Amino acid sequence: MATRLGIAFKAAGHQIIQVWGRNTDATSSLGKKLNANIASSFEQITRDADIYILAVSDDAIQDVARSFPHKDKLLVHTSGATPLSVLEKYITYAGVIYPLQTLSKIKEVDFIDIPIGIEASTPIHQSQLHFLAESISEKVQVISSQQRRVLHLAAVFACNFTNHLYVIAEKMLKEEGVDFDLLKPLIAETTKKALVFSPSSVKTGPASRSDYGTISAHLELLTNKDRLSSIYKLLTDSIIESLMINKD
Amino acid sequence: MATRLGIAFKAAGHQIIQVWGRNTDATSSLGKKLNANIASSFEQITRDADIYILAVSDDAIQDVARSFPHKDKLLVHTSGATPLSVLEKYITYAGVIYPLQTLSKIKEVDFIDIPIGIEASTPIHQSQLHFLAESISEKVQVISSQQRRVLHLAAVFACNFTNHLYVIAEKMLKEEGVDFDLLKPLIAETTKKALVFSPSSVKTGPASRSDYGTISAHLELLTNKDRLSSIYKLLTDSIIESLMINKD
Repeated sequence: MATRLGIAFKAAGHQIIQVWGRNTDATSSLGKKLNANIASSFEQITRDADIYILAVSDDAIQDVARSFPHKDKLLVHTSGATPLSVLEKYITYAGVIYPLQTLSKIKEVDFIDIPIGIEASTPIHQSQLHFLAESISEKVQVISSQQRRVLHLAAVFACNFTNHLYVIAEKMLKEEGVDFDLLKPLIAETTKKALVFSPSSVKTGPASRSDYGTISAHLELLTNKDRLSSIYKLLTDSIIESLMINKD
Repeated sequence: MATRLGIAFKAAGHQIIQVWGRNTDATSSLGKKLNANIASSFEQITRDADIYILAVSDDAIQDVARSFPHKDKLLVHTSGATPLSVLEKYITYAGVIYPLQTLSKIKEVDFIDIPIGIEASTPIHQSQLHFLAESISEKVQVISSQQRRVLHLAAVFACNFTNHLYVIAEKMLKEEGVDFDLLKPLIAETTKKALVFSPSSVKTGPASRSDYGTISAHLELLTNKDRLSSIYKLLTDSIIESLMINKD
Protein backbone atom coordinates (compact mmCIF):
# COMPACT_ATOMS: atom_id res chain seq x y z
CA MET A 1 0.00 0.00 0.00
CA ALA A 2 2.81 2.42 0.94
CA THR A 3 4.63 1.71 -2.33
CA ARG A 4 1.54 1.91 -4.57
CA LEU A 5 0.12 5.05 -2.95
CA GLY A 6 3.53 6.71 -2.77
CA ILE A 7 4.21 6.16 -6.46
CA ALA A 8 0.71 7.30 -7.44
CA PHE A 9 0.80 10.47 -5.34
CA LYS A 10 4.26 11.37 -6.59
CA ALA A 11 3.14 10.82 -10.20
CA ALA A 12 0.16 13.10 -9.52
CA GLY A 13 2.55 15.89 -8.59
CA HIS A 14 2.61 15.62 -4.79
CA GLN A 15 5.89 15.66 -2.92
CA ILE A 16 6.66 12.72 -0.65
CA ILE A 17 8.98 14.43 1.83
CA GLN A 18 9.86 11.47 4.00
CA VAL A 19 9.40 7.76 4.47
CA TRP A 20 9.37 5.91 7.77
CA GLY A 21 9.10 2.15 8.23
CA ARG A 22 9.91 -0.69 10.58
CA ASN A 23 11.75 -2.68 7.91
CA THR A 24 14.97 -0.75 7.14
CA ASP A 25 15.63 -2.27 3.71
CA ALA A 26 12.07 -1.82 2.42
CA THR A 27 11.99 1.74 3.77
CA SER A 28 15.25 2.77 2.14
CA SER A 29 14.21 1.20 -1.19
CA LEU A 30 10.89 3.05 -1.07
CA GLY A 31 12.69 6.27 -0.12
CA LYS A 32 14.86 5.98 -3.22
CA LYS A 33 11.84 5.27 -5.47
CA LEU A 34 10.01 8.32 -4.15
CA ASN A 35 13.05 10.56 -3.91
CA ALA A 36 12.21 11.04 -0.22
CA ASN A 37 14.44 11.12 2.83
CA ILE A 38 14.24 8.41 5.49
CA ALA A 39 13.18 8.72 9.12
CA SER A 40 14.81 5.90 11.04
CA SER A 41 13.02 6.61 14.34
CA PHE A 42 9.79 8.28 15.46
CA GLU A 43 11.86 11.26 16.70
CA GLN A 44 13.17 11.84 13.17
CA ILE A 45 9.70 12.14 11.62
CA THR A 46 9.45 15.58 10.06
CA ARG A 47 6.96 18.23 11.19
CA ASP A 48 6.89 19.69 7.67
CA ALA A 49 4.32 17.47 5.97
CA ASP A 50 0.65 18.34 5.45
CA ILE A 51 -0.52 14.75 5.64
CA TYR A 52 1.00 11.64 7.24
CA ILE A 53 -0.13 8.36 5.69
CA LEU A 54 0.03 5.31 7.92
CA ALA A 55 0.12 2.43 5.41
CA VAL A 56 0.81 -0.37 7.89
CA SER A 57 -1.02 -3.63 8.62
CA ASP A 58 -4.26 -3.32 10.57
CA ASP A 59 -2.89 -4.65 13.84
CA ALA A 60 0.03 -2.17 13.79
CA ILE A 61 -2.08 0.98 13.30
CA GLN A 62 -2.79 1.53 16.98
CA ASP A 63 0.84 1.07 18.09
CA VAL A 64 2.22 3.39 15.45
CA ALA A 65 -0.45 6.03 16.12
CA ARG A 66 0.41 5.93 19.82
CA SER A 67 4.09 6.62 19.09
CA PHE A 68 3.50 9.18 16.31
CA PRO A 69 5.15 12.37 17.57
CA HIS A 70 3.06 15.17 16.00
CA LYS A 71 -0.27 15.00 17.78
CA ASP A 72 -1.64 18.12 16.01
CA LYS A 73 -1.02 16.87 12.46
CA LEU A 74 -3.37 15.03 10.10
CA LEU A 75 -2.63 11.30 10.41
CA VAL A 76 -4.38 9.01 7.94
CA HIS A 77 -4.71 5.23 7.81
CA THR A 78 -5.65 3.10 4.79
CA SER A 79 -7.52 0.24 6.44
CA GLY A 80 -11.03 -0.95 5.62
CA ALA A 81 -11.56 -2.69 8.92
CA THR A 82 -10.28 0.07 11.25
CA PRO A 83 -12.58 2.88 12.40
CA LEU A 84 -11.36 6.48 12.42
CA SER A 85 -11.75 6.53 16.21
CA VAL A 86 -8.72 4.25 16.63
CA LEU A 87 -6.50 7.11 15.45
CA GLU A 88 -8.51 9.74 17.34
CA LYS A 89 -7.53 8.11 20.63
CA TYR A 90 -3.99 9.42 20.08
CA ILE A 91 -4.19 12.45 17.80
CA THR A 92 -6.57 15.35 17.16
CA TYR A 93 -6.95 15.20 13.38
CA ALA A 94 -7.39 11.79 11.86
CA GLY A 95 -8.39 10.56 8.47
CA VAL A 96 -8.79 7.52 6.24
CA ILE A 97 -7.89 6.90 2.62
CA TYR A 98 -9.25 3.48 1.70
CA PRO A 99 -8.64 2.28 -1.86
CA LEU A 100 -11.01 -0.58 -2.70
CA GLN A 101 -8.61 -2.81 -4.55
CA THR A 102 -6.11 -5.54 -3.78
CA LEU A 103 -2.70 -4.01 -4.29
CA SER A 104 0.53 -5.79 -4.96
CA LYS A 105 4.05 -4.57 -4.29
CA ILE A 106 5.19 -5.74 -7.72
CA LYS A 107 2.35 -4.96 -10.08
CA GLU A 108 1.80 -1.32 -11.01
CA VAL A 109 -1.65 0.00 -10.25
CA ASP A 110 -3.56 2.71 -12.04
CA PHE A 111 -5.79 4.17 -9.34
CA ILE A 112 -7.92 6.14 -11.80
CA ASP A 113 -10.80 3.61 -11.77
CA ILE A 114 -10.26 2.37 -8.22
CA PRO A 115 -12.87 3.68 -5.79
CA ILE A 116 -11.35 5.44 -2.80
CA GLY A 117 -13.35 5.96 0.38
CA ILE A 118 -12.26 8.88 2.54
CA GLU A 119 -13.18 10.04 6.04
CA ALA A 120 -11.75 12.69 8.37
CA SER A 121 -12.22 14.21 11.82
CA THR A 122 -13.16 17.66 10.48
CA PRO A 123 -14.73 19.01 7.28
CA ILE A 124 -11.50 20.86 6.43
CA HIS A 125 -9.43 17.73 6.71
CA GLN A 126 -12.06 15.84 4.75
CA SER A 127 -11.72 18.36 1.89
CA GLN A 128 -7.96 18.03 2.07
CA LEU A 129 -8.19 14.23 1.71
CA HIS A 130 -10.81 14.56 -1.03
CA PHE A 131 -8.45 16.79 -2.99
CA LEU A 132 -5.55 14.37 -2.44
CA ALA A 133 -7.52 11.25 -3.38
CA GLU A 134 -9.06 12.92 -6.43
CA SER A 135 -5.60 13.57 -7.78
CA ILE A 136 -5.24 9.83 -8.38
CA SER A 137 -8.82 8.46 -8.66
CA GLU A 138 -12.03 9.53 -10.37
CA LYS A 139 -14.12 7.58 -7.86
CA VAL A 140 -13.66 9.28 -4.50
CA GLN A 141 -16.47 9.07 -1.97
CA VAL A 142 -16.91 10.04 1.64
CA ILE A 143 -17.51 6.78 3.53
CA SER A 144 -18.20 6.61 7.28
CA SER A 145 -16.34 4.18 9.53
CA GLN A 146 -19.47 2.02 9.82
CA GLN A 147 -19.94 1.99 6.02
CA ARG A 148 -16.28 1.15 5.53
CA ARG A 149 -16.55 -1.76 7.98
CA VAL A 150 -19.50 -3.12 6.04
CA LEU A 151 -17.69 -2.58 2.73
CA HIS A 152 -14.75 -4.53 4.09
CA LEU A 153 -17.07 -7.33 5.23
CA ALA A 154 -18.92 -7.31 1.89
CA ALA A 155 -15.57 -7.62 0.12
CA VAL A 156 -14.82 -10.74 2.16
CA PHE A 157 -18.07 -12.29 0.93
CA ALA A 158 -17.78 -11.10 -2.68
CA CYS A 159 -14.02 -11.61 -3.15
CA ASN A 160 -12.29 -13.78 -0.55
CA PHE A 161 -15.15 -16.27 -0.23
CA THR A 162 -15.80 -16.42 -3.96
CA ASN A 163 -12.10 -17.12 -4.54
CA HIS A 164 -12.38 -19.93 -2.01
CA LEU A 165 -15.32 -21.37 -3.96
CA TYR A 166 -13.08 -21.31 -7.04
CA VAL A 167 -10.44 -23.19 -5.01
CA ILE A 168 -13.04 -25.80 -4.05
CA ALA A 169 -14.17 -26.19 -7.67
CA GLU A 170 -10.58 -26.48 -8.90
CA LYS A 171 -9.77 -29.19 -6.32
CA MET A 172 -12.99 -31.10 -7.02
CA LEU A 173 -12.20 -31.20 -10.75
CA LYS A 174 -8.56 -32.14 -10.20
CA GLU A 175 -9.68 -35.19 -8.22
CA GLU A 176 -11.67 -36.35 -11.27
CA GLY A 177 -8.88 -35.56 -13.73
CA VAL A 178 -10.79 -32.64 -15.22
CA ASP A 179 -8.96 -29.44 -16.18
CA PHE A 180 -10.13 -26.31 -14.30
CA ASP A 181 -9.73 -24.45 -17.61
CA LEU A 182 -13.00 -26.01 -18.78
CA LEU A 183 -14.85 -24.00 -16.15
CA LYS A 184 -13.12 -20.68 -16.76
CA PRO A 185 -15.37 -19.27 -19.50
CA LEU A 186 -18.44 -19.98 -17.36
CA ILE A 187 -16.87 -18.29 -14.33
CA ALA A 188 -15.83 -15.26 -16.39
CA GLU A 189 -19.33 -14.92 -17.86
CA THR A 190 -21.02 -15.29 -14.46
CA THR A 191 -18.98 -12.48 -12.93
CA LYS A 192 -19.35 -10.30 -16.01
CA LYS A 193 -23.14 -10.65 -15.93
CA ALA A 194 -23.30 -9.92 -12.20
CA LEU A 195 -21.28 -6.74 -12.68
CA VAL A 196 -23.02 -5.48 -15.83
CA PHE A 197 -26.51 -6.26 -14.56
CA SER A 198 -27.17 -6.90 -10.88
CA PRO A 199 -26.22 -10.24 -9.26
CA SER A 200 -29.79 -10.65 -8.00
CA SER A 201 -31.13 -10.39 -11.55
CA VAL A 202 -28.89 -13.09 -13.04
CA LYS A 203 -29.47 -15.99 -10.65
CA THR A 204 -29.08 -19.43 -12.19
CA GLY A 205 -28.53 -22.95 -10.91
CA PRO A 206 -30.56 -25.66 -9.21
CA ALA A 207 -31.31 -23.72 -6.00
CA SER A 208 -32.69 -20.71 -7.85
CA ARG A 209 -34.94 -23.02 -9.90
CA SER A 210 -35.92 -25.01 -6.77
CA ASP A 211 -34.66 -28.07 -8.67
CA TYR A 212 -34.56 -30.47 -5.72
CA GLY A 213 -33.71 -33.46 -7.90
CA THR A 214 -30.39 -31.94 -8.93
CA ILE A 215 -29.73 -30.70 -5.39
CA SER A 216 -30.10 -34.26 -3.99
CA ALA A 217 -27.91 -35.65 -6.77
CA HIS A 218 -25.23 -33.08 -5.90
CA LEU A 219 -25.44 -33.87 -2.20
CA GLU A 220 -25.07 -37.54 -3.01
CA LEU A 221 -21.85 -36.75 -4.89
CA LEU A 222 -20.66 -34.99 -1.73
CA THR A 223 -21.25 -37.96 0.58
CA ASN A 224 -18.19 -38.34 2.85
CA LYS A 225 -17.19 -34.75 2.17
CA ASP A 226 -18.69 -33.18 5.28
CA ARG A 227 -17.30 -29.70 4.86
CA LEU A 228 -18.37 -29.40 1.22
CA SER A 229 -21.81 -30.86 1.98
CA SER A 230 -22.28 -28.27 4.71
CA ILE A 231 -21.25 -25.45 2.38
CA TYR A 232 -23.52 -26.77 -0.38
CA LYS A 233 -26.51 -27.09 1.97
CA LEU A 234 -26.03 -23.74 3.66
CA LEU A 235 -25.61 -21.73 0.44
CA THR A 236 -28.47 -23.62 -1.23
CA ASP A 237 -30.73 -22.86 1.76
CA SER A 238 -29.64 -19.24 1.65
CA ILE A 239 -30.48 -18.97 -2.06
CA ILE A 240 -33.89 -20.58 -1.54
CA GLU A 241 -34.54 -18.26 1.41
CA SER A 242 -33.65 -15.21 -0.69
CA LEU A 243 -36.11 -16.33 -3.39
CA MET A 244 -38.86 -16.50 -0.80
CA ILE A 245 -38.00 -13.06 0.55
CA ASN A 246 -38.08 -11.61 -2.96
CA LYS A 247 -41.52 -13.10 -3.56
CA ASP A 248 -42.98 -11.36 -0.50
CA MET B 1 -30.11 -24.43 -25.67
CA ALA B 2 -32.11 -25.63 -28.73
CA THR B 3 -32.08 -22.15 -30.24
CA ARG B 4 -28.40 -21.44 -29.57
CA LEU B 5 -27.15 -24.84 -30.71
CA GLY B 6 -29.46 -24.87 -33.74
CA ILE B 7 -28.25 -21.48 -34.93
CA ALA B 8 -24.60 -22.38 -34.34
CA PHE B 9 -24.81 -25.75 -36.13
CA LYS B 10 -26.65 -24.21 -39.06
CA ALA B 11 -24.05 -21.43 -39.30
CA ALA B 12 -21.33 -24.11 -39.31
CA GLY B 13 -22.91 -25.65 -42.40
CA HIS B 14 -24.99 -28.47 -40.92
CA GLN B 15 -28.55 -28.96 -41.99
CA ILE B 16 -31.24 -28.90 -39.32
CA ILE B 17 -33.89 -31.07 -40.97
CA GLN B 18 -36.59 -30.89 -38.37
CA VAL B 19 -37.59 -29.35 -35.05
CA TRP B 20 -39.81 -30.93 -32.44
CA GLY B 21 -40.98 -29.28 -29.22
CA ARG B 22 -43.69 -29.33 -26.61
CA ASN B 23 -44.38 -25.61 -26.95
CA THR B 24 -45.98 -25.10 -30.38
CA ASP B 25 -45.21 -21.39 -30.71
CA ALA B 26 -41.57 -21.69 -29.69
CA THR B 27 -41.12 -24.72 -31.95
CA SER B 28 -42.56 -23.03 -35.00
CA SER B 29 -40.50 -19.88 -34.39
CA LEU B 30 -37.34 -21.99 -34.09
CA GLY B 31 -38.30 -23.95 -37.21
CA LYS B 32 -38.51 -20.71 -39.17
CA LYS B 33 -35.16 -19.48 -37.85
CA LEU B 34 -33.45 -22.73 -38.81
CA ASN B 35 -35.33 -23.24 -42.06
CA ALA B 36 -36.44 -26.64 -40.74
CA ASN B 37 -39.77 -28.42 -40.89
CA ILE B 38 -41.80 -29.06 -37.75
CA ALA B 39 -42.72 -32.36 -36.13
CA SER B 40 -45.89 -31.85 -34.13
CA SER B 41 -45.94 -35.33 -32.60
CA PHE B 42 -43.42 -38.09 -31.83
CA GLU B 43 -44.82 -40.07 -34.78
CA GLN B 44 -43.89 -37.26 -37.14
CA ILE B 45 -40.22 -37.27 -36.14
CA THR B 46 -38.16 -38.01 -39.24
CA ARG B 47 -35.95 -41.08 -39.62
CA ASP B 48 -33.63 -39.16 -41.97
CA ALA B 49 -31.36 -37.37 -39.48
CA ASP B 50 -27.88 -38.52 -38.43
CA ILE B 51 -28.13 -37.06 -34.96
CA TYR B 52 -31.12 -36.16 -32.77
CA ILE B 53 -30.41 -33.50 -30.16
CA LEU B 54 -32.60 -33.51 -27.09
CA ALA B 55 -32.24 -29.96 -25.75
CA VAL B 56 -34.92 -30.14 -23.08
CA SER B 57 -34.83 -29.47 -19.34
CA ASP B 58 -33.16 -32.13 -17.20
CA ASP B 59 -36.35 -33.53 -15.74
CA ALA B 60 -37.92 -34.00 -19.20
CA ILE B 61 -35.01 -35.97 -20.74
CA GLN B 62 -36.19 -39.36 -19.51
CA ASP B 63 -39.80 -38.89 -20.65
CA VAL B 64 -38.85 -37.69 -24.10
CA ALA B 65 -36.26 -40.45 -24.55
CA ARG B 66 -38.89 -43.02 -23.61
CA SER B 67 -41.24 -41.73 -26.32
CA PHE B 68 -38.57 -41.13 -28.97
CA PRO B 69 -39.59 -43.41 -31.88
CA HIS B 70 -36.25 -44.34 -33.54
CA LYS B 71 -34.56 -46.62 -31.05
CA ASP B 72 -31.63 -47.37 -33.39
CA LYS B 73 -30.63 -43.73 -33.99
CA LEU B 74 -28.08 -41.55 -32.13
CA LEU B 75 -29.96 -39.54 -29.51
CA VAL B 76 -27.98 -36.87 -27.67
CA HIS B 77 -28.80 -34.80 -24.59
CA THR B 78 -27.12 -31.55 -23.49
CA SER B 79 -27.33 -31.82 -19.72
CA GLY B 80 -24.47 -31.58 -17.24
CA ALA B 81 -26.29 -33.38 -14.47
CA THR B 82 -27.67 -36.32 -16.47
CA PRO B 83 -25.59 -39.46 -17.08
CA LEU B 84 -25.47 -41.07 -20.51
CA SER B 85 -27.11 -44.18 -19.03
CA VAL B 86 -30.44 -42.35 -18.67
CA LEU B 87 -30.73 -42.34 -22.47
CA GLU B 88 -29.32 -45.85 -22.83
CA LYS B 89 -32.28 -47.22 -20.91
CA TYR B 90 -34.43 -46.46 -23.96
CA ILE B 91 -32.19 -46.42 -27.03
CA THR B 92 -29.08 -48.21 -28.28
CA TYR B 93 -26.86 -45.28 -29.29
CA ALA B 94 -26.77 -42.36 -26.92
CA GLY B 95 -24.57 -39.33 -26.62
CA VAL B 96 -24.03 -36.06 -24.81
CA ILE B 97 -23.05 -32.62 -26.07
CA TYR B 98 -22.53 -30.43 -23.00
CA PRO B 99 -21.53 -26.80 -23.62
CA LEU B 100 -20.07 -25.29 -20.46
CA GLN B 101 -21.70 -21.90 -20.60
CA THR B 102 -24.93 -20.25 -19.51
CA LEU B 103 -26.94 -19.67 -22.65
CA SER B 104 -29.72 -17.21 -23.17
CA LYS B 105 -32.51 -17.34 -25.71
CA ILE B 106 -32.00 -13.68 -26.58
CA LYS B 107 -28.25 -13.10 -26.54
CA GLU B 108 -26.24 -14.54 -29.41
CA VAL B 109 -23.47 -16.90 -28.40
CA ASP B 110 -20.19 -17.56 -30.12
CA PHE B 111 -19.37 -21.14 -29.19
CA ILE B 112 -15.80 -20.93 -30.48
CA ASP B 113 -14.29 -20.41 -26.98
CA ILE B 114 -16.92 -22.35 -25.08
CA PRO B 115 -15.69 -25.76 -23.88
CA ILE B 116 -17.93 -28.61 -25.02
CA GLY B 117 -17.81 -31.97 -23.26
CA ILE B 118 -18.91 -34.94 -25.36
CA GLU B 119 -19.64 -38.58 -24.57
CA ALA B 120 -21.18 -41.43 -26.57
CA SER B 121 -22.12 -45.11 -26.31
CA THR B 122 -19.64 -46.25 -28.97
CA PRO B 123 -16.31 -44.93 -30.33
CA ILE B 124 -17.91 -44.33 -33.74
CA HIS B 125 -20.66 -42.20 -32.28
CA GLN B 126 -18.10 -40.42 -30.14
CA SER B 127 -16.14 -39.48 -33.28
CA GLN B 128 -19.34 -38.30 -34.89
CA LEU B 129 -20.11 -36.01 -31.95
CA HIS B 130 -16.50 -34.82 -31.79
CA PHE B 131 -16.71 -33.81 -35.45
CA LEU B 132 -20.04 -32.07 -34.86
CA ALA B 133 -18.92 -30.21 -31.73
CA GLU B 134 -15.60 -29.19 -33.29
CA SER B 135 -17.48 -27.46 -36.08
CA ILE B 136 -18.59 -24.82 -33.55
CA SER B 137 -16.00 -24.92 -30.73
CA GLU B 138 -12.22 -25.13 -30.48
CA LYS B 139 -12.45 -26.65 -27.00
CA VAL B 140 -14.04 -30.07 -27.40
CA GLN B 141 -13.16 -32.78 -24.89
CA VAL B 142 -14.39 -36.26 -24.16
CA ILE B 143 -15.87 -36.14 -20.66
CA SER B 144 -17.31 -39.17 -18.86
CA SER B 145 -20.70 -39.06 -17.15
CA GLN B 146 -18.97 -39.01 -13.75
CA GLN B 147 -16.65 -36.17 -14.80
CA ARG B 148 -19.59 -34.25 -16.21
CA ARG B 149 -21.51 -34.63 -12.96
CA VAL B 150 -18.56 -33.26 -11.03
CA LEU B 151 -18.14 -30.42 -13.56
CA HIS B 152 -21.79 -29.54 -13.07
CA LEU B 153 -21.35 -29.59 -9.29
CA ALA B 154 -18.14 -27.55 -9.51
CA ALA B 155 -20.02 -24.99 -11.63
CA VAL B 156 -22.61 -24.66 -8.87
CA PHE B 157 -19.82 -23.81 -6.41
CA ALA B 158 -17.85 -21.56 -8.76
CA CYS B 159 -20.77 -19.80 -10.46
CA ASN B 160 -24.15 -20.12 -8.75
CA PHE B 161 -22.77 -19.86 -5.22
CA THR B 162 -20.36 -17.04 -6.08
CA ASN B 163 -23.23 -15.12 -7.64
CA HIS B 164 -25.16 -15.62 -4.41
CA LEU B 165 -22.23 -14.19 -2.45
CA TYR B 166 -22.41 -11.15 -4.73
CA VAL B 167 -26.13 -10.92 -3.93
CA ILE B 168 -25.33 -11.01 -0.21
CA ALA B 169 -22.66 -8.31 -0.58
CA GLU B 170 -24.99 -6.11 -2.63
CA LYS B 171 -27.77 -6.38 -0.04
CA MET B 172 -25.40 -5.76 2.87
CA LEU B 173 -24.13 -2.57 1.24
CA LYS B 174 -27.60 -1.38 0.29
CA GLU B 175 -28.65 -1.58 3.94
CA GLU B 176 -25.81 0.83 4.80
CA GLY B 177 -26.54 3.17 1.88
CA VAL B 178 -23.37 2.13 0.06
CA ASP B 179 -23.39 1.69 -3.71
CA PHE B 180 -22.49 -1.85 -4.89
CA ASP B 181 -20.55 -0.16 -7.71
CA LEU B 182 -17.79 0.61 -5.21
CA LEU B 183 -17.06 -3.10 -4.91
CA LYS B 184 -17.16 -3.91 -8.61
CA PRO B 185 -13.50 -3.22 -9.52
CA LEU B 186 -12.37 -5.43 -6.63
CA ILE B 187 -14.70 -8.25 -7.69
CA ALA B 188 -13.56 -8.00 -11.30
CA GLU B 189 -9.89 -8.06 -10.28
CA THR B 190 -10.39 -11.04 -7.93
CA THR B 191 -11.99 -13.16 -10.65
CA LYS B 192 -9.45 -12.06 -13.22
CA LYS B 193 -6.56 -13.06 -10.97
CA ALA B 194 -8.14 -16.42 -10.15
CA LEU B 195 -8.57 -17.18 -13.85
CA VAL B 196 -5.16 -15.94 -15.02
CA PHE B 197 -3.25 -17.55 -12.18
CA SER B 198 -4.82 -20.27 -10.05
CA PRO B 199 -7.42 -19.44 -7.37
CA SER B 200 -5.34 -21.25 -4.76
CA SER B 201 -2.34 -19.02 -5.51
CA VAL B 202 -4.17 -15.71 -5.08
CA LYS B 203 -5.81 -16.15 -1.69
CA THR B 204 -6.35 -12.94 0.25
CA GLY B 205 -8.50 -11.85 3.17
CA PRO B 206 -8.57 -12.30 6.93
CA ALA B 207 -9.05 -16.09 6.94
CA SER B 208 -6.08 -16.72 4.64
CA ARG B 209 -3.90 -14.53 6.89
CA SER B 210 -5.34 -16.17 10.03
CA ASP B 211 -6.29 -12.64 11.12
CA TYR B 212 -8.60 -13.59 13.97
CA GLY B 213 -9.04 -9.99 15.12
CA THR B 214 -10.72 -9.03 11.85
CA ILE B 215 -12.70 -12.27 11.78
CA SER B 216 -14.20 -11.52 15.23
CA ALA B 217 -14.93 -7.94 14.21
CA HIS B 218 -16.77 -9.21 11.13
CA LEU B 219 -18.76 -11.74 13.15
CA GLU B 220 -19.72 -8.98 15.56
CA LEU B 221 -21.09 -6.98 12.61
CA LEU B 222 -23.18 -10.04 11.73
CA THR B 223 -24.77 -10.40 15.17
CA ASN B 224 -28.50 -11.06 14.68
CA LYS B 225 -27.89 -12.21 11.12
CA ASP B 226 -27.83 -15.93 11.77
CA ARG B 227 -27.68 -17.11 8.17
CA LEU B 228 -24.86 -14.74 7.21
CA SER B 229 -22.93 -15.55 10.39
CA SER B 230 -23.18 -19.25 9.58
CA ILE B 231 -21.97 -18.68 6.02
CA TYR B 232 -19.12 -16.47 7.25
CA LYS B 233 -18.03 -19.03 9.87
CA LEU B 234 -18.29 -22.04 7.60
CA LEU B 235 -16.36 -20.51 4.70
CA THR B 236 -13.77 -19.03 7.06
CA ASP B 237 -13.27 -22.46 8.69
CA SER B 238 -13.01 -24.03 5.25
CA ILE B 239 -10.34 -21.52 4.17
CA ILE B 240 -8.34 -22.07 7.38
CA GLU B 241 -8.65 -25.83 6.94
CA SER B 242 -7.37 -25.61 3.35
CA LEU B 243 -4.34 -23.62 4.55
CA MET B 244 -3.52 -26.37 7.03
CA ILE B 245 -3.88 -29.06 4.37
CA ASN B 246 -1.55 -27.15 2.05
CA LYS B 247 1.07 -26.87 4.81
CA ASP B 248 1.17 -30.63 5.31
